[in-house]
Amino acid sequence: LHRIKASGLKLRFCTNETQATREKFVKKLKGLGFDISVAEVTAPAPAACRMLKERSLRPHLLVHNDLVPEFAEIDKTNPNCVVIGDAAENFTYANLNEAFRVLIGMEKPVLISLGRGRYYKETDGLKLDVGAYMKALEYACCVQAEVVGKPSKMFFESALAEMGVPPEQAIMIGDDIESDVGGAQRCGMRALQVRTGKYRPCDENHPHVKPDAYVNNLAEAVDIILQQL
Amino acid sequence: LHRIKASGLKLRFCTNETQATREKFVKKLKGLGFDISVAEVTAPAPAACRMLKERSLRPHLLVHNDLVPEFAEIDKTNPNCVVIGDAAENFTYANLNEAFRVLIGMEKPVLISLGRGRYYKETDGLKLDVGAYMKALEYACCVQAEVVGKPSKMFFESALAEMGVPPEQAIMIGDDIESDVGGAQRCGMRALQVRTGKYRPCDENHPHVKPDAYVNNLAEAVDIILQQL
Repeated sequence: LHRIKASGLKLRFCTNETQATREKFVKKLKGLGFDISVAEVTAPAPAACRMLKERSLRPHLLVHNDLVPEFAEIDKTNPNCVVIGDAAENFTYANLNEAFRVLIGMEKPVLISLGRGRYYKETDGLKLDVGAYMKALEYACCVQAEVVGKPSKMFFESALAEMGVPPEQAIMIGDDIESDVGGAQRCGMRALQVRTGKYRPCDENHPHVKPDAYVNNLAEAVDIILQQL
Repeated sequence: LHRIKASGLKLRFCTNETQATREKFVKKLKGLGFDISVAEVTAPAPAACRMLKERSLRPHLLVHNDLVPEFAEIDKTNPNCVVIGDAAENFTYANLNEAFRVLIGMEKPVLISLGRGRYYKETDGLKLDVGAYMKALEYACCVQAEVVGKPSKMFFESALAEMGVPPEQAIMIGDDIESDVGGAQRCGMRALQVRTGKYRPCDENHPHVKPDAYVNNLAEAVDIILQQL
C-alpha cells in the first residue's frame, strides 16, 4: 500500500463488509498494519444510502446492529423498501417475518440487498450469508432484489467516480473470482486475482471469469502495476 | 364427506400440513365435525419417510417440534441428507446455519423439502413458509431441493397408490389453484377448485392452470361427482 500511495496512483478499498461501520472496519485494518482511512473505503451501506436518497426510499432495515449507524441520516419512517445486509444474529424468525410483511405489504415491493454472498467462514464455522436470506425474501414476495456491493456494476462505478478515474485506467486486485474479478471486468476494468485468502486452485478453471493475471500476493500485484507505469 | 363415503367412493385427504403429526391434524378436523381417520390422510412427512427408507437416507431434521414424532422410526445418526419442513419458531439463525453446514459438508448435498409454500396467514399475521427457507439453502449450497407434498407428482401418486385407483378415475377437490389443481392435473387426475379458503377470483385467470370445473363449496363438488356416477 505504501508503494502504491508513494507512486501517486489513486486507491480505493472496495469491501462487501456489512457487519460493521466503515469506522470499525478501518480500525481493524489499521490494527493489522494497513495504511487506510475511512475516506478511502467503498462499502455497500453508504452506496445504499446514496441510492435511498436519490429515489426517496425509506428503508425497513434488516441489518447487523453495528451497521445501523451508517443509516443514521436516512428517514426510516413509514418504510417503502426493505434493506437487507448480513444481519447475523438479527436473522431471527421474528425479524425475517417482519421484513417479509413490510415487503409484501407494498404495492410494488423494493428489496435492496447489501451483497449476494452465499456463505462465509468464521472461527466457529460456516455461516449463511446475506444472499441466502435475500433469496428467501425474493421467493416469498416474487421480487428480484437490487444488489448493492460487489459484484454489482454500480458499486464499482461509484468507486471509480470517487477517484475520478475511467474504468480502462483502473485495475482491481482481489481474491474472489466472481465478486472481485468478474464484477470489475464487467465494469470495463482489468483485474488481478491474488492467490491468497478466498482463492482456490479451481478458480483458475472458472467457466466464465478469467483474470487478466494471477499474482501470488499483494506485493507481487504492486510490482506488476508499478513496472507498467 | 358422509355422502361420499356412503356412495362407496374411495377417499383420501391430501394435506401439506407439516406443523403437526397426522394424529394432531385429524384430531383438529374431527373437532370441526369432519368424519376423518389418520389412515385416510396423505401428508408430506410420511411420504418423506418412505423416500428416506427407500434410498437409505438418514436425515438431519429442520422441522416443527410437533412433527418430529413422524420420524420416530427413521435412523438419524450420521446424517446424509437434510429434511426441511415449516419449522416455524425452529427457524432460528443457529438452526439454519446448522442445517446449512450439514448440507454443504456432503459430497453431493441432498435437500428434501416438505412443501414449497411461499407464506401463509396466522392470526398474528403473515409468516414465511418452508419454501422461502428451502430457497435460502438451495442458493447457499447450489443444490435443488426435492419437494415432497403438493404439488409434487410423487405425492399425488402415493395418494392414488394408497387407494389403488388410477389417476384418470380420481378427482381432486381443492382451494389452491397451483398446489391442488395444477399438481393433480399434472398427475393425470381431474380437479375441481372450490371457491372457498385460499381461493381468489384472480385464480380464474391463472396463466397455466385451469380447473376442470369450479364449485362454490365442498357440498356442490359432491353433488357434481355423485351425479356422474
